[in-house]
Amino acid sequence: MNYKHQFFNDYAETAHPACIQKLSEQTLQQEAGYGLDSVSVHAATLIRAKLGVVNDTPVHFISGGTQANLTVIGALLRPHEAVIAVESGHIATHETGAIEATGHKVIQMPHINGKLTPAAIEQVMRTHPNEHSVKPRMVFVSQATELGTVYSRTELLALRAVCDTHDLWLYIDGARLGSALCSENAACDWQDIARFADVFYIGGTKNGALLGEAIVFPNTILNNDFRYALKQRGALLAKGRVIASQFVALFEHDLYGELAQHANDCAMRLRTGLSELGVVFYTDSATNQQFPILSNAVVEALQKDYGFYTWEELNKRESVVRFVFSWATPMAMVDELLTDTKRLLNS
Amino acid sequence: MNYKHQFFNDYAETAHPACIQKLSEQTLQQEAGYGLDSVSVHAATLIRAKLGVVNDTPVHFISGGTQANLTVIGALLRPHEAVIAVESGHIATHETGAIEATGHKVIQMPHINGKLTPAAIEQVMRTHPNEHSVKPRMVFVSQATELGTVYSRTELLALRAVCDTHDLWLYIDGARLGSALCSENAACDWQDIARFADVFYIGGTKNGALLGEAIVFPNTILNNDFRYALKQRGALLAKGRVIASQFVALFEHDLYGELAQHANDCAMRLRTGLSELGVVFYTDSATNQQFPILSNAVVEALQKDYGFYTWEELNKRESVVRFVFSWATPMAMVDELLTDTKRLLNS
Amino acid sequence: MNYKHQFFNDYAETAHPACIQKLSEQTLQQEAGYGLDSVSVHAATLIRAKLGVVNDTPVHFISGGTQANLTVIGALLRPHEAVIAVESGHIATHETGAIEATGHKVIQMPHINGKLTPAAIEQVMRTHPNEHSVKPRMVFVSQATELGTVYSRTELLALRAVCDTHDLWLYIDGARLGSALCSENAACDWQDIARFADVFYIGGTKNGALLGEAIVFPNTILNNDFRYALKQRGALLAKGRVIASQFVALFEHDLYGELAQHANDCAMRLRTGLSELGVVFYTDSATNQQFPILSNAVVEALQKDYGFYTWEELNKRESVVRFVFSWATPMAMVDELLTDTKRLLNS
Amino acid sequence: MNYKHQFFNDYAETAHPACIQKLSEQTLQQEAGYGLDSVSVHAATLIRAKLGVVNDTPVHFISGGTQANLTVIGALLRPHEAVIAVESGHIATHETGAIEATGHKVIQMPHINGKLTPAAIEQVMRTHPNEHSVKPRMVFVSQATELGTVYSRTELLALRAVCDTHDLWLYIDGARLGSALCSENAACDWQDIARFADVFYIGGTKNGALLGEAIVFPNTILNNDFRYALKQRGALLAKGRVIASQFVALFEHDLYGELAQHANDCAMRLRTGLSELGVVFYTDSATNQQFPILSNAVVEALQKDYGFYTWEELNKRESVVRFVFSWATPMAMVDELLTDTKRLLNS
Repeated sequence: MNYKHQFFNDYAETAHPACIQKLSEQTLQQEAGYGLDSVSVHAATLIRAKLGVVNDTPVHFISGGTQANLTVIGALLRPHEAVIAVESGHIATHETGAIEATGHKVIQMPHINGKLTPAAIEQVMRTHPNEHSVKPRMVFVSQATELGTVYSRTELLALRAVCDTHDLWLYIDGARLGSALCSENAACDWQDIARFADVFYIGGTKNGALLGEAIVFPNTILNNDFRYALKQRGALLAKGRVIASQFVALFEHDLYGELAQHANDCAMRLRTGLSELGVVFYTDSATNQQFPILSNAVVEALQKDYGFYTWEELNKRESVVRFVFSWATPMAMVDELLTDTKRLLNS
Repeated sequence: MNYKHQFFNDYAETAHPACIQKLSEQTLQQEAGYGLDSVSVHAATLIRAKLGVVNDTPVHFISGGTQANLTVIGALLRPHEAVIAVESGHIATHETGAIEATGHKVIQMPHINGKLTPAAIEQVMRTHPNEHSVKPRMVFVSQATELGTVYSRTELLALRAVCDTHDLWLYIDGARLGSALCSENAACDWQDIARFADVFYIGGTKNGALLGEAIVFPNTILNNDFRYALKQRGALLAKGRVIASQFVALFEHDLYGELAQHANDCAMRLRTGLSELGVVFYTDSATNQQFPILSNAVVEALQKDYGFYTWEELNKRESVVRFVFSWATPMAMVDELLTDTKRLLNS
Repeated sequence: MNYKHQFFNDYAETAHPACIQKLSEQTLQQEAGYGLDSVSVHAATLIRAKLGVVNDTPVHFISGGTQANLTVIGALLRPHEAVIAVESGHIATHETGAIEATGHKVIQMPHINGKLTPAAIEQVMRTHPNEHSVKPRMVFVSQATELGTVYSRTELLALRAVCDTHDLWLYIDGARLGSALCSENAACDWQDIARFADVFYIGGTKNGALLGEAIVFPNTILNNDFRYALKQRGALLAKGRVIASQFVALFEHDLYGELAQHANDCAMRLRTGLSELGVVFYTDSATNQQFPILSNAVVEALQKDYGFYTWEELNKRESVVRFVFSWATPMAMVDELLTDTKRLLNS
Repeated sequence: MNYKHQFFNDYAETAHPACIQKLSEQTLQQEAGYGLDSVSVHAATLIRAKLGVVNDTPVHFISGGTQANLTVIGALLRPHEAVIAVESGHIATHETGAIEATGHKVIQMPHINGKLTPAAIEQVMRTHPNEHSVKPRMVFVSQATELGTVYSRTELLALRAVCDTHDLWLYIDGARLGSALCSENAACDWQDIARFADVFYIGGTKNGALLGEAIVFPNTILNNDFRYALKQRGALLAKGRVIASQFVALFEHDLYGELAQHANDCAMRLRTGLSELGVVFYTDSATNQQFPILSNAVVEALQKDYGFYTWEELNKRESVVRFVFSWATPMAMVDELLTDTKRLLNS
């Protein structure tokens, strides 16, 4: 296809130049293997500073989100224990059974605006009372969610409380954490994430890095033997600096925040523009994914020039579509998309 | 430590500049995700040309060797099936039970000069006759081996024959395949590997790439649903081009061969030099890993200036040590190491 | 508790005397181990005769239903493949993640009257199109269902058709197969089960045996290496005759049918009696499990004298309760239960 | 084959009449399911009394040895942890990879007289220092061993000490525990087993029961959530009393000891008899398995009349064979076997 531009996802472009530049600065420097190199140490320090956590908070770098999820969940749960997620959760739908392949059930609950609720968790606990069912032991949420929504500080606090009540670990998938924290009216910041989660990861792949996510264990005891888990799952890169350098580039001058802000700005420009044209949105997203509801005729016409997915057929006439904006999306392209949509809506 | 130089491994340097350069050429180019990008297609074409295999031979890119091994073995074996390897094999010793974590036993046999023999395989088949033991279904060998030795064409042919007799798949771990194929008197070439193996991988991490290995399925039917396996194991990078670009850099002008040759040249310079000094070697290695036997006093003295591992304590007085050479090892450093060793031996 | 009688389940009594008697007839007879004994051969022959299947149809004996399910499903699926079941399915709810522990996702769909529908399967296929999700490969249904309903021949035919269309295996959990086949107006018989299923099991534990289920593979090719699977899962008893003798007792004179018929008769007596009293039933069950809707006051009063579970709280005032009848339930107890309920309803 | 008698194994006969009798005493008695019945409670009490352990020491009943091993080991180890066993250990050779199927490596070490030594464990600890290898976490030994030998109290104490040093759990497979404890000069008793092991099982299948083993957790904290493990592995029988009743029969009047003693007596009669004829034995067994070395001509002649396995071909002319004696072996048969062997040796 020859698209004017693709809005399929936020990993279509290679990487921000600063991320590539970092790699070229140290070509021949000999370093220790398997994440024990000086670049990994430096990147971890930058991340801890951003989070405001103590010096010994463990940070690990890993190549992708599915690998992060399966390694963390596989390491923390005993065989009969399970993780709770919403039905639209990434581990429930788009990881090819990666969690089940480590032996654990993903207990799937309906979402509300993309989010898992304390009430849903309570219901799981009631229906899993004894050894005839799996034992719920972890709560998995994505910040931002798959539907672009953001858990507020209050909502995270409530999740934390229900986790404490039922002895559950709270794991936050931060594939799009930057976008969540930079979103309009976000009542949640880096410190909140580190305070409420037992373990979480900061997504690099979808925010300008060549590859990589940073796993953080605010609940440090859970880090026990985690490097064994990384090695066993094939997740411990021989050259740890490759991923770590991405995070140095992203966190030494808050490039991470800038890139996420740009993606959000593109998204909100589209949202505002379409809203003014009377378009309704499927979800209340203030992040880099937007889900407008458009007539099938408009969708079809737009898909000749722009790459984007149909998320769900709403009815015979209308569909929910998804536009994803990245650190590299040209704002001019958003405007062009808006102009084209306006023309189609009016024709 | 402040070493003059480290000979611990062949992944201490970041990457050959050409490998990093490739990434910077396409920063903003939008590409399809998950290995379906044009760079991955191009890299696969280059590899197939080098191997002399047909156009539809599947090639996949993956971030590391342990991940390659667990994904391939986990995908091909049924739950009761097992893989045969030598006791010194990487999957048997240094992958933290990654294969067992996919549910499969690694049947370990003694090696001869680092190699698995047809006789050992025959013995396994005799001792695993029925459902009370696992069913051997795959043979795993490394080319070059963990001891630096290389299977000749004749030896590979014999392994292939015993595999055919017993309905076993032959999987070749090519973490150091470049070094094996460039080695002195190597009676084995790219075409042999593709002809004898059902599946193998070409190592990039240990031969100049930032990261990555290329998995090839000459036995194309085994590739069936393999992308599901990659996704499930967290091995399908969102930005497939990151690894693929490494292989473009390495294979468009045979940089791969040049880098491996340099590492081997360094290794042979050390071998020749120490041999002239009367030093005996533990294995018959013509590749980039050398295992001289040195007195503990010499080892201790050398380890003040050079980084390298003691492989095995041979007796109270002597140890086998390992020197590993890479694409980036300065030849002058080999000479300096030789000079220092000569001095120590004579003192 | 001192109950007049328990209706909690259909495995509260030890076993029919004929099942125990069989064991005592052969105390000192030396037999081959691991299911290769003459009793196992004889039991398999009796079962094949009942099913009207060919002589080489594989039959295996196993100690329980969860073990049957995990061994069959674990043996037939490749790691990325999944099984489809209703949300109320036994493997989805009451097996402590046994299927996930073998590495496979259970795709859960809403049920209609306890049953999985072809439409639900079609929906699963549409939402699992590629390697980013698991690959559906098996359909799991229980006959009778967890809600006591029975798939008719027509319904099984429709499931078979959708399985054929999408290359799915059909596995029937027959924990209560006897009750299903003996049920009033059952438009389904032994031959249908063997004709439509690729693999199924005949439940002994819940129909008079000490323990044991018989796994049958009408699709004989799926039996390939299944004894390895049995051994690996700890399911191959050293003394295979222990389970097989139960099936000899149950199938040499159709005791199996008689016991199931008795349990159903008790169930229908309750159903008819309560219906006459105006009680409504939650499901359309003609088998040995009945789910009347009773006021909480009545439930509470009854539970002082009888053991039975509350299935679901329907609203503030009423609950669905479950009465299970077995081969050993005294009909007089059903009548007494009816009398007591009548009194409570009228008070 | 029409053998005079089979000495293949110790599970060729169905069960001691008392074990079957127990089942028939309670046919219609309604009991709780899944091991919570009164028979299971009673059996556990009898076993605790025999062991001299406290009242809350957990005891579970399970259908077979492989199932016991995979359930215990799978429950106690984290994914990267491994179990140490001798190369001849049951989990290493004859369980079809059951332990690996739960994700764990079995680290196999050479045995001395069938036994694992503290020195071997120390060696494992030295070669598994960090996250690049599995983490040894459990020691597995069989009492009696696969070669019929018995660990003395002193030897168990030494194993316990090395386990304490390295934070390893000691698991004793007691498939033939009765035979071990009744053996001549056994310097080890029931209390020792309960004192030294963290967890062990008492074998019923090979000592007169229809089926079943009793898992005991002297280290009670390891029992945490173990019923979940039992259910998930398909090991929690609906009718727990079926296995428990076997242990009531075996332990209420020490039938367990009597049966084991009889098997040992048969074995020692053979050993003494053959020794007097000049036959040498492969192992120093004082239990119910004997491994004489016989000429192939004698073996072949004997195998026409008696069932027994060739254990190992010692050289071109001689083999090690295995005779196994059970609770039901007629002593007259041992004498007949001796007479026949004597005749053959003299011919």
